[in-house]
Amino acid sequence: MPSASSGPSAPRAREFRTPDASRRSERSRRAILDASMELVGEVGYNKLTIEAVAARAGVGKQTIYRWWPSKAAVLLDAFTTVVTNAEYEAGIPDTGDLEADLKQVLRATVDEFTDASFEAPYRALAVAGAADEELSKEFLERLMEPGMEVYTRRLRSAQEAGQIAEDIDIGLAVEMLLGPFQQRWLQRTGTLTHEFTDALVELVLRGLAPR
Amino acid sequence: MPSASSGPSAPRAREFRTPDASRRSERSRRAILDASMELVGEVGYNKLTIEAVAARAGVGKQTIYRWWPSKAAVLLDAFTTVVTNAEYEAGIPDTGDLEADLKQVLRATVDEFTDASFEAPYRALAVAGAADEELSKEFLERLMEPGMEVYTRRLRSAQEAGQIAEDIDIGLAVEMLLGPFQQRWLQRTGTLTHEFTDALVELVLRGLAPR
Repeated sequence: MPSASSGPSAPRAREFRTPDASRRSERSRRAILDASMELVGEVGYNKLTIEAVAARAGVGKQTIYRWWPSKAAVLLDAFTTVVTNAEYEAGIPDTGDLEADLKQVLRATVDEFTDASFEAPYRALAVAGAADEELSKEFLERLMEPGMEVYTRRLRSAQEAGQIAEDIDIGLAVEMLLGPFQQRWLQRTGTLTHEFTDALVELVLRGLAPR
Repeated sequence: MPSASSGPSAPRAREFRTPDASRRSERSRRAILDASMELVGEVGYNKLTIEAVAARAGVGKQTIYRWWPSKAAVLLDAFTTVVTNAEYEAGIPDTGDLEADLKQVLRATVDEFTDASFEAPYRALAVAGAADEELSKEFLERLMEPGMEVYTRRLRSAQEAGQIAEDIDIGLAVEMLLGPFQQRWLQRTGTLTHEFTDALVELVLRGLAPR
């Protein structure tokens, strides 16, 4: 969910409103977030304007400025809503079979990153973050680090279960799982397929096993 | 060296010129490449103009257009000249100690990527490539793939020497070495230090060893 400081997300903070006004407000919020995702995928981050988001969402520009300080804030809320709900809260399944669990979640991530409606806006944001250190900090804190954290938790649980050697640096292991994926994606050094992520999981785990 | 199709690189193709004209031409070429590297680090890829490169290099705009079709072509030649000479031709040392050799070359790469005069223009080009699929292809072919190829060669030689298990996919192993580095760098998920690359080499090699 968007943080209270950057979006009108929490109905409980709006109890003074009538139910109808709250519903309208929530509808506008969703329309703005959806419009920002669509548009950034179409025109890129640099050319995205609050005016265009307002027009696409069918709201006034001031409505957006009342709730968010910048286009970056709108977009980060849009992604946080999508990604948080889909992935972070659930975490990675823990069936006890680490290899199967990692393969499953990485296959789902491949599907997500090969879906243009997700990929185009996410690339626009990642490109903007790579170019701009300030934006990058927010992008990291709100999207990438929580994303990496679910892998850290799953690998740590496997380490506690004795499936990963005690001396392994779990943070580094997560980077070995996600870095090659991110490089193929962002720098287009290879194709994102289930075969790739399956093989990656196997090779990474080979180095983590107790000796 | 720049390819013959995109730059006035090969003196042997210019034998009809007087020696003085060839020297002037080579001086202009170097000035243009240097200016393009400096400027892209200062203003980013999108705001880089041929006019500004010409002004900084002290040549006419038409001199640049005579030799290169676009600013991307100038920049790619600039990087290819710097990076090829420094790294690709030499390859990775092969002392027989794979771990030491990889650590040495990755430490040198950390030093390069923490040097602003290299990092800023390289980031500008990487960001532009992440945003633009066409540019990305050239960036990949002329810079990233040759860079990955030197690792492939070194790992393959270790595999032939029996230091890496026979069933290891060397291409994937290279991605496990370079992906985490590239992610820390481009997406700023961590600091590039010698300690990081040393630990990365150790953990990757742990998974590659014959069993």
